[in-house]
Amino acid sequence: MSTLPVAPPVALDRARELVDPLLLTAVARLCPELQPPVQHHLGGGGKHVRAALALLSAEACGADVEVGLPGAVAIELVHNFSLLHDDVIDGDRERRHRPTVWAQFGVGAAIIAGDALAILALEVLLEEPSPHAALAALELARATQAMTAGQADDMAFEVRPIVSLEECLRMEERKTGALLSCAPALGAILAGAPPATVDALRDYGRHLGIAFQAVDDLLGIWGDPSVTGKPAGSDLRQHKKTLPVVAALAAADGMAGEFTALLRGRLSEREVATAARFVEGYGGRDTTMEVAERHLADALGALDRVPLVPSATEELADIANFVVGRDR
Amino acid sequence: MSTLPVAPPVALDRARELVDPLLLTAVARLCPELQPPVQHHLGGGGKHVRAALALLSAEACGADVEVGLPGAVAIELVHNFSLLHDDVIDGDRERRHRPTVWAQFGVGAAIIAGDALAILALEVLLEEPSPHAALAALELARATQAMTAGQADDMAFEVRPIVSLEECLRMEERKTGALLSCAPALGAILAGAPPATVDALRDYGRHLGIAFQAVDDLLGIWGDPSVTGKPAGSDLRQHKKTLPVVAALAAADGMAGEFTALLRGRLSEREVATAARFVEGYGGRDTTMEVAERHLADALGALDRVPLVPSATEELADIANFVVGRDR
Repeated sequence: MSTLPVAPPVALDRARELVDPLLLTAVARLCPELQPPVQHHLGGGGKHVRAALALLSAEACGADVEVGLPGAVAIELVHNFSLLHDDVIDGDRERRHRPTVWAQFGVGAAIIAGDALAILALEVLLEEPSPHAALAALELARATQAMTAGQADDMAFEVRPIVSLEECLRMEERKTGALLSCAPALGAILAGAPPATVDALRDYGRHLGIAFQAVDDLLGIWGDPSVTGKPAGSDLRQHKKTLPVVAALAAADGMAGEFTALLRGRLSEREVATAARFVEGYGGRDTTMEVAERHLADALGALDRVPLVPSATEELADIANFVVGRDR
Repeated sequence: MSTLPVAPPVALDRARELVDPLLLTAVARLCPELQPPVQHHLGGGGKHVRAALALLSAEACGADVEVGLPGAVAIELVHNFSLLHDDVIDGDRERRHRPTVWAQFGVGAAIIAGDALAILALEVLLEEPSPHAALAALELARATQAMTAGQADDMAFEVRPIVSLEECLRMEERKTGALLSCAPALGAILAGAPPATVDALRDYGRHLGIAFQAVDDLLGIWGDPSVTGKPAGSDLRQHKKTLPVVAALAAADGMAGEFTALLRGRLSEREVATAARFVEGYGGRDTTMEVAERHLADALGALDRVPLVPSATEELADIANFVVGRDR
């Protein structure tokens, strides 16, 4: 993992420029009561990684960037739906340095606004006059379902004393990998690419998703609060069974009595720091970095499996390197 | 409105027998963590009105009952999704005489279980090897979106001092009418019926939905708690701007000072009874019964607009009469 600050790939800016106007047009269709919470949430920005993957993937399959646009809009809508509901479930009051929707408008508004965005995503795809629209919608629905399963696992793991490394990886593959694998798959499907190409691009996104989540887990414990927008050690405070925690518990193998005690109840600043040192001491940080690097390599490898347009494929590789090395 | 107890149409039992096994097969695909909340919720039963409308509508269009089945399963999944989220939003701890999912398993579980059911509904339709699957999925997505808008209105109305009768009717048309109009439309679409037939059956369901909600509003104030499963006057306690309340406020026209005071804060038993008498005294009960009867007549009229198979059409009429006259 690079520790140098890396400039975001231009593909992310382009995705924002192309997708944001369409995203705003799409949400303008929602009822007036939902506009304040939805606008507040979208006003927080976002990196548009998923949108960029959909657009670049369509181009990597030889299509014009416009072909991937409905997929890019739909995947961003689903991503934002998941953030709205996640914040309610996790009780997070801040995101991107601003109050979350439930904290500002109430739990009911956050639930309904999330529901509306999830359904709107499928409407956007199903309204597309493309022969591939229905297949794209099914791909998105299945990915959304997988993400939901990952969220359910994540929530269940918080109260379970023991979670295996395999269970944790599978949860993260679903929670984060589902949408990141769906995004490039949507671009390829809308471009009418053959199944082997759709599969390769889906695999690229799946591995990228696992690597992305591993980095997110590192930031959830050791990230700079001024950059992440979350309090230091927030995942430890919430007793999240993230990859570093699960890896450390597995390595400690029975010697973790004091630490598992820290995985319950309300933690002081000092206890959060102690827990972070434990996780690092038992190799949780190193193991997680290895997971991120291995899946980054697998993501890049998937791009070599099928013939793709070189320029767009290079940009897909740039995004993978940026996302995994990101210094936020 | 009939005050005689009416036997439920056999079409509801048939819908339960045909749809429940498929519903259980569909939800079995959801992840293990979601099984307890979902099974608990589905275990509460339900009248299967929407499922019956989808099945009968396919038959009214000349198709076998099997053709309507994916639509029946999908519409029940969306209906149950809406109940799970509604109970969280309204803070209702009981449904069908049992604890609601959030009360039993927590808010997070209820939100995610609802999300999973909504997406599963679209998966069920999009996986169907029918040439009409994509159109059916779009119909369902739009209805779900309209229902969401109705819920957002409903929530906003609780804290608004004045709601017009038109606004209230439009809200109820969306909140309840959206799924009740979608159900027969799905049956017709899956049967490959021409657009005019789909429109007539959608209209039947739309009017039925408004009539259904009007009756529900009457029961929410004057319903027998042992039958409705909700406390007496529960809609008044929750300050719901339902049709009887809005109609009474409009009729009182400035003479409602004492009553509007009752629409705020926590109400005692006695205050609930006073409020109910006010609503009745200013014609809120009569106006709502008239709305129910008028829209029941419109629903039945829509069935005469296009040629349909008589036996199934008669059963659609039976369901409408039962639902609006229901004594629950």
